[in-house]
Amino acid sequence: MSQPFDKLGIVGAGSMGSCMTMLFAENDLQVSVYDVSGQNIDNLYNALQEGLDKELHHRVARFKDLDQFMESLGGQNADKLLVFSIPHGSAADKVIADVHEHLSHGDIILDGGNEWYENAERRQKQLAPEGIAYLCMGVSGGYQSARRGPSISPSGDKAALDRVMPLLEKIAAKDPKTGQPCVANLGPAGCGHYVKMVHNGIEQGILGIVSETWELLYKCLHTDLGTISQIFKKWEDGGELRRNFLVGIGADICRRYKEDRPGHVVNEVQDKVVQDADDSEGTGVWSVMEAAKRHVSAPTIAAAHFFRIASADRAERMQVVEALGQSIGAARKQHVEDKFKTEFFEDLRLAVYCACLASFTQGLNLIARASADEGWNVSLASCIRIWREGCIIRSEYIADLLQPLFDKEPGTKNILTLQPVADEITRTIPHLRKVVQYGLEWNAHVPTLSASYEFFKYCGGKHLPSQFMEAELDYFGAHSYDLKSDGDGEVKKGEHHFEWKPA
Amino acid sequence: MSQPFDKLGIVGAGSMGSCMTMLFAENDLQVSVYDVSGQNIDNLYNALQEGLDKELHHRVARFKDLDQFMESLGGQNADKLLVFSIPHGSAADKVIADVHEHLSHGDIILDGGNEWYENAERRQKQLAPEGIAYLCMGVSGGYQSARRGPSISPSGDKAALDRVMPLLEKIAAKDPKTGQPCVANLGPAGCGHYVKMVHNGIEQGILGIVSETWELLYKCLHTDLGTISQIFKKWEDGGELRRNFLVGIGADICRRYKEDRPGHVVNEVQDKVVQDADDSEGTGVWSVMEAAKRHVSAPTIAAAHFFRIASADRAERMQVVEALGQSIGAARKQHVEDKFKTEFFEDLRLAVYCACLASFTQGLNLIARASADEGWNVSLASCIRIWREGCIIRSEYIADLLQPLFDKEPGTKNILTLQPVADEITRTIPHLRKVVQYGLEWNAHVPTLSASYEFFKYCGGKHLPSQFMEAELDYFGAHSYDLKSDGDGEVKKGEHHFEWKPA
Repeated sequence: MSQPFDKLGIVGAGSMGSCMTMLFAENDLQVSVYDVSGQNIDNLYNALQEGLDKELHHRVARFKDLDQFMESLGGQNADKLLVFSIPHGSAADKVIADVHEHLSHGDIILDGGNEWYENAERRQKQLAPEGIAYLCMGVSGGYQSARRGPSISPSGDKAALDRVMPLLEKIAAKDPKTGQPCVANLGPAGCGHYVKMVHNGIEQGILGIVSETWELLYKCLHTDLGTISQIFKKWEDGGELRRNFLVGIGADICRRYKEDRPGHVVNEVQDKVVQDADDSEGTGVWSVMEAAKRHVSAPTIAAAHFFRIASADRAERMQVVEALGQSIGAARKQHVEDKFKTEFFEDLRLAVYCACLASFTQGLNLIARASADEGWNVSLASCIRIWREGCIIRSEYIADLLQPLFDKEPGTKNILTLQPVADEITRTIPHLRKVVQYGLEWNAHVPTLSASYEFFKYCGGKHLPSQFMEAELDYFGAHSYDLKSDGDGEVKKGEHHFEWKPA
Repeated sequence: MSQPFDKLGIVGAGSMGSCMTMLFAENDLQVSVYDVSGQNIDNLYNALQEGLDKELHHRVARFKDLDQFMESLGGQNADKLLVFSIPHGSAADKVIADVHEHLSHGDIILDGGNEWYENAERRQKQLAPEGIAYLCMGVSGGYQSARRGPSISPSGDKAALDRVMPLLEKIAAKDPKTGQPCVANLGPAGCGHYVKMVHNGIEQGILGIVSETWELLYKCLHTDLGTISQIFKKWEDGGELRRNFLVGIGADICRRYKEDRPGHVVNEVQDKVVQDADDSEGTGVWSVMEAAKRHVSAPTIAAAHFFRIASADRAERMQVVEALGQSIGAARKQHVEDKFKTEFFEDLRLAVYCACLASFTQGLNLIARASADEGWNVSLASCIRIWREGCIIRSEYIADLLQPLFDKEPGTKNILTLQPVADEITRTIPHLRKVVQYGLEWNAHVPTLSASYEFFKYCGGKHLPSQFMEAELDYFGAHSYDLKSDGDGEVKKGEHHFEWKPA
C-alpha cells in the first residue's frame, strides 16, 4: 500500500499544469494529464514538443476523456495520486464530483490551486471517511518555477503527506545555499493553502513597493529603462535586496524589447490590474479579509491591494480624471543633480528593503495568529525555508535575517519584537521616510510605501493619537477606557467611563 | 391586525437599551424591558429615576423573568413588537431561541444591534414561514442619540416595516433643516444592517482623521487643549465641517475636566482601542472585509482600522518600542510663528474635510456595490437623509453636497465621477497634501490622512504605476495585459502576454 507513486494524474493543463507535467516527467514519473478543455490538451502537445526532451515524451499521456484518464492511473485497485492545477472554488468542487466515482481508499489528491483554506478543509472532511486524502499543496513561483522547481507549502493528513513528501522534495526548488528542498509539511488541515495565501499577500505588498519605486525612478527622476534595469540588477546582486525576486524580474522587464516593434515592452502595458476585480485571483482579497478578521494590522498589504483594485476600471477612472479636470496623481519630472540621484538611489534601495520588511512582518504575524487560532502549529521557520527559492517573495537577505530567529523563538507572535528585526528597521527607516517625503513632493504614487512607513511609526509609537479616538468612542459609545496610570494593561475593555455629555 | 403598536418589549437594558426605553416611553408607548442580567434591570431603575419624568414611569415595566416579560406584551393572541438591543451574533441567536415559543404570526422583531447582515438574513428566512418578521434596525448615534432621537436604518419585509415606520419616524432624530425624520425603509433583506455597518466604517475613517488632526495640533504645534476646543468648535460652526459630529464632540472633549482631579480628562486616557481586538465591535472589521471582498477601494477606512487595531496591545507595543530603542512615531514639537499657525489651521480644516470626503466616498461606493450585487436597490440619497442628524458621521456640508446629486443620479456607482464632488476635491486636495507633508516632517502619525491623499491620487490618476505591477504579474504568472493602444477597455483579462522569460 505504501510504495512510492510511480505515476500520477494531473487535472488541468493550463500554464501551471503543463509546466508541472514536464517537471514530474523529468523526475521519473509517468504522467497522465486531463483537462475539460480539449484545447488545453492540444496545446500541451506543442508545449511538450518545445519544452521536454524527446526521450521523455513517452512518460506523458494526454486525455480528453475523464474515464480513460482515471483508468490510466491503474483503476479502482491501485492507489492513485491526483494533482489539481485548476481554479479555486467551484471549479475544483466540480472536478472532485466528477472524479469521485473513480476514487477509493488510499487515493490522494494534491490540490495545487490557490484555494481558500476553508474550502480545502471542507473537502478534507468530505473525503476522509472514504480513506481519500485531500492535501493542500500551495505552489508558488509562477509558471517558470512550476517548470523548473516551485516552492511548495503542503498540509493535511500526515500519513498521506508522508507518502508524497519524497516526491515533492524531488520536484521542489532547492535552496542554493544548502541544497535543501523548498517544501515542508506545514501541519494539518488547510494551513498549506493558508500559508500560500499569505505568501501572495506579502507578494502583493512587494509588488506595490517595487511598482512605486519604478515610478519614482522612471517618471520623477527620468531614469531611462536601461539604467533602471542596471539599478535593479545591482540591488538584486547583493546587500539587503539580495536575490529579491520581484526586484530581479524588474531588472529583466526594464530591458525587454519586442522583436517586431520598437521600444520597450513595458511601455505598451496598460496600467490595469484586473485579476482581483474579475475574481480570477482570490489570495490578495482573502489576505486583506483575514488580516481584518483576525485583528492583525496589515496596512502595507491592504494599501497595495486597494491601489491595484482601483486601477482595474480604467474607463471609470478616466471619468474621474475628466471630472477633476486634471490627473491628480501625475508624477512630476524632477531636475536634480547627479550627486543627488546617486544618493537617492541608495535611499530608495534601503526604503524598498524596509517596506518589504513591513510586508513580511504583516504576513508572518497573520500566519502566527491564524496558526494559534486554528491550532495548526505552523512553523514560521519552515515558511521561511519554503520561501528561500522558487517563489515570488524570495528575498535571501530577509530569509537569512528571520530564519535563525524563528528557529530560536518558534512561538513568535509579533516579528517586530525580535531585536535583530527591530535593529534593521531602526537602521533603514530614515531612508523609507526620506523616500516617502520625496514621493509626496514629486507627486508620485506612494500608497504602499507610505502605509509601510506609518505602520512602523504606530507599531513602534509610545504615545498614539488613538488616545483621542478612545476618548471619542467613550464620549458617544460609553466604550470606556484605561487610565494612563493603569499602565499598559491587557487587551480588554477599560474600566473607566467619563460622562462627557449626559444622555 | 394592523393597528399601530401601543406597547413594545425591549430585550437588553444596557446603555443603548435603557436610553431607547425612555425614548419610547416619552413617545406614548408602554415599554416592557427584559435583560438576562438582573443587574442591568436593577440599574435601569436608577436610570429611570434620573432620566425620565416621574409621570412617565408607569409606562415602563422591568422584567427579570422572560415568560412574564412576554406575557406583558399581550400573550399569544396579540401582535407583539420586540426591540433587540443586544450584542450581535450568538447573543441575538440565543434570545431568538428563548423567545421563539412565545412568538406567533404577526409579531415583529426590530433588531437594533450592530448585526452582521448575513445573520440578519438567516433569521429573516428562519422566521418568515411562521409569519414572524425580523427587521434590521441600524441605530446610530450612541447612547445620547438613543435617548433623544437616533438615526435609524431599517430593512426587511415591507408590510411589517410599514407597520412600524410611523413609530420609528416618531422616535428618530429630525433633520433640523427640514424637520424630516432620519429614518427610511432602505429595502429588503439585510441592507439596513449593512448600511449601519458602512456608517461605522465611515465613522472609523473620520475617527482616524480627527485623532491625527488632534495630534498635529496638540503634540506638534503645541496648541493648548482650550484653544483646540475653540478651533474644533469654530470648524463645527460653519463651512466645510459644519455640524460634523466627530469634530464637534472633539471640541467638547478638549475642554472637559474631572471634578476630583486637576487637568483635562483626555490627558488621562490611555492610547488603546480594544473593541475590535476583543470582538465586541464587529462593524469596523466587517467594513474592511466587505470592501476587499466586493472589490471596492477603501484605504481610508482600512488605514484607520489597522491603526486602531495596532494600538490595542499596548504591552506588546512597548516591547517593540524597547527593541527599537526609541519611539519611532514621536510627534515632534515645532516652533513656528503665529502667522504660520493661523494659516496651517485653515489647511488642516480643509484637509479634514477632504479626507472625510474620501471616507464617505469609499463607504458610499461600497453600499452602491453591495446593493447592486445583492439586488437591494438601496437609495444613496436615503442614506444621506438618514445620516443628517442623530448619527456619528453627521456632516451637514457633505450631506448638502451629496444628497441632491444622489436624488438626480440614483444609480451612481462611484461618487468621484460626480462633477460637484470632483470640484470639491480639486479645491481642497492641496490642503490635504500640505498637511500630510507637514505631518511627515513633524513625525506625526498620519496613516489615515496619507491613505486618503493617496486614494485620491490613484483614483484620479491617468497613468498609474500599476503598469509595472501588471508587467510583473505577466512575467511570472502569465496574467496577460491590455496594450495602452487598446484604450481604456473593460475590466477583464487582457489579451496580450509577453514571454519575458521562457519557462
